[in-house]
Amino acid sequence: MNAEIIAVGTELLLGQIVNTNARFLARELANLAIGVYRQTVVGDNPERLTHALQEAFSRADLVILTGGLGPTKDDLTKETVAAYFDLPLEEHAPSMRRIEDFFTRMNRPMRENNRKQALMPKGCTVLQNDHGTAPGVWMEQNGKIAVILPGPPFEMEPMYRNRVYPLLREKCPEQFYSRTLNVIGVGESELESRLMPLIEAQSDPTIAPYAKEGEVQIRITTRAASEQEAMERIDPIAEQVKEAAPGCIYGEGDITLAQAVANLLMEQNKTVATAESCTGGMIGAALTDIPGISQVYRQGYITYSNEAKESLLGVNHETLASHGAVSRETAEEMARGAQRNANADYAIAVTGIAGPDGGTPQKPVGLIYAALACPDGSVEVEEMRLVGDRDKNRRVTVKRALDLLRRALTK
Amino acid sequence: MNAEIIAVGTELLLGQIVNTNARFLARELANLAIGVYRQTVVGDNPERLTHALQEAFSRADLVILTGGLGPTKDDLTKETVAAYFDLPLEEHAPSMRRIEDFFTRMNRPMRENNRKQALMPKGCTVLQNDHGTAPGVWMEQNGKIAVILPGPPFEMEPMYRNRVYPLLREKCPEQFYSRTLNVIGVGESELESRLMPLIEAQSDPTIAPYAKEGEVQIRITTRAASEQEAMERIDPIAEQVKEAAPGCIYGEGDITLAQAVANLLMEQNKTVATAESCTGGMIGAALTDIPGISQVYRQGYITYSNEAKESLLGVNHETLASHGAVSRETAEEMARGAQRNANADYAIAVTGIAGPDGGTPQKPVGLIYAALACPDGSVEVEEMRLVGDRDKNRRVTVKRALDLLRRALTK
Repeated sequence: MNAEIIAVGTELLLGQIVNTNARFLARELANLAIGVYRQTVVGDNPERLTHALQEAFSRADLVILTGGLGPTKDDLTKETVAAYFDLPLEEHAPSMRRIEDFFTRMNRPMRENNRKQALMPKGCTVLQNDHGTAPGVWMEQNGKIAVILPGPPFEMEPMYRNRVYPLLREKCPEQFYSRTLNVIGVGESELESRLMPLIEAQSDPTIAPYAKEGEVQIRITTRAASEQEAMERIDPIAEQVKEAAPGCIYGEGDITLAQAVANLLMEQNKTVATAESCTGGMIGAALTDIPGISQVYRQGYITYSNEAKESLLGVNHETLASHGAVSRETAEEMARGAQRNANADYAIAVTGIAGPDGGTPQKPVGLIYAALACPDGSVEVEEMRLVGDRDKNRRVTVKRALDLLRRALTK
Repeated sequence: MNAEIIAVGTELLLGQIVNTNARFLARELANLAIGVYRQTVVGDNPERLTHALQEAFSRADLVILTGGLGPTKDDLTKETVAAYFDLPLEEHAPSMRRIEDFFTRMNRPMRENNRKQALMPKGCTVLQNDHGTAPGVWMEQNGKIAVILPGPPFEMEPMYRNRVYPLLREKCPEQFYSRTLNVIGVGESELESRLMPLIEAQSDPTIAPYAKEGEVQIRITTRAASEQEAMERIDPIAEQVKEAAPGCIYGEGDITLAQAVANLLMEQNKTVATAESCTGGMIGAALTDIPGISQVYRQGYITYSNEAKESLLGVNHETLASHGAVSRETAEEMARGAQRNANADYAIAVTGIAGPDGGTPQKPVGLIYAALACPDGSVEVEEMRLVGDRDKNRRVTVKRALDLLRRALTK
């Protein structure tokens, strides 16, 4: 099956918003092995939309439209597509009740023009909207399918997943399944060269590396009739990838490194403290992004100045004077000080030159030290030489520092 | 003049990337009052691209294409458009030298297929690429203009700004100019109702409010032949907007609230310390995002647990026991403690329940206190009742807390 995606909305043509809906739908359709050869954006204009529809259906069997289902006069997608299919609009009683309920629940008066949202092309499949007032539409005629979804992504995405995907899945005997391994602590080119024999020997499932900031994702994908069938092929490859990057895979899919570290701390009931110079609180912010972290993360120190490093963490004045604030020695004393003062099992410390200024020939921008104090009294220090801008250097440092802790917790 | 935008790239059709280029170009063309009635995405396929070009030129005089200028066999945009205009490709010597120089500078060998990037349609205007190897193309024939730009946004955007915009500007007698005022500390609906008389009395320049997270932007726009002419009309309106939201405008355009606060601190040579519970380091991270902040921000405390609030900030055990960690009283003592222990002019403190758990009927999720300790010994405390999720509550809290400080610094 071939499909096209048409986004309707003058705000897209004016560049006021980005067309993330097309990206979402394109990825979903690709997963179903449905070919998409064209995406189009048109304004809220019935004539131009009709023209775009004609063109799209001359090439494809399925056209998914987003936007223009709102209550205002401008919103004409449903009306235009129904006219194209020559179907009259009729009031759909369950949708009307849902819209009335919605306004009652929100304690807001329902306006007359909201009734328009319950008018549906005769004989269509109505797609219930669990996150707004505009129902979606699935129309099928002579082998051509038009699907209309609301424009706001938080309404569109669940409607696609819960209402459209099951209907499309019935028409597609197979789909793509994948597992994504999140890898940190080994560079993309190094990882690629380690995986190259595997990638080259392998045509199905496919193995594809994707560079993310400071980490790499390895996606293993195959096309199958069921998830079980897919995983029987994918799982052995995943094992081989894991063997190629021992200790470097912190999780799969959407899990973040901070969440993975938090899970390990909570499982092992170990506490951590933070002492941050150039990251200025970002490691604390990443950890406290995780609900429930208070069990294992109780305090942190932002020690931007030398005085703060001395007074809050007990870094020796001598160390700062002889080695400088950005040094292996200072990082180590910061970690020890945070561990001791916070009475924590572990402590992460970071000091460095994030840029854009402050670099010298001996200590250039991007020179950053991360230290980890461990329960056995040892301290591990990692020296980084990063090449990004200030923002990127800080973000990558957060990941590298958290990874130090992750590795200690998985030893 | 009417225009269309065609993005070329199979990675867009597969949903691997979002088409931010279309958004950027749409906004730029709207600024020039050039009408855009259609945006299209096609794959790296000469036949389908030719078809899309024919369609686009049947409706528009200007077609801007992005993507497909790379060195690989798949990259065929230039070849396809040149064939459409019936122009042969010739080596463009200055581009070839630039490409050779680029590889010399990167200390990487130039591959044979990079030569392809210096082949240009005969008689076209070559658009120099300052950020990569692919030059862009401006072709004009019988009143139809095709512009081809590279796909990566960091190459495309400067090429548009520096090479394409001046050529288009010559063809457009007028363009839109605007000023954007960043407003914080007054809700969108309150601000709209204050501005409504002004908005309704005003047709040119137009005044449009845009909600951002925790703040509002007011954009004042007019169409004029020159910036000076535009500002003569815009500036008086901006003054009226400022009068409608006294003390709430922290800056204009792209400046962030953290930057505005940092500027005030540096101008006044005042220091600030931070004490964070539910934001867990985010305020420190926002401040240290600003280069040069070390002059005014030296240390901060992440006090996630009650014990840390006592030991690091000297919050009274009694206060925590009788009022709780999330209370006006605790926020105040945190701010006083941070100010005292860091020996800072100001101190910002935050404590609250970001969610999703931890709420009670008396202290629901979203109840957050921000406190500011001032040089005169006073402490101001703001109570917030936010309704977002954990992430949003934390981000909005950072802004509200920074705004407390901004207001004190501008008193």
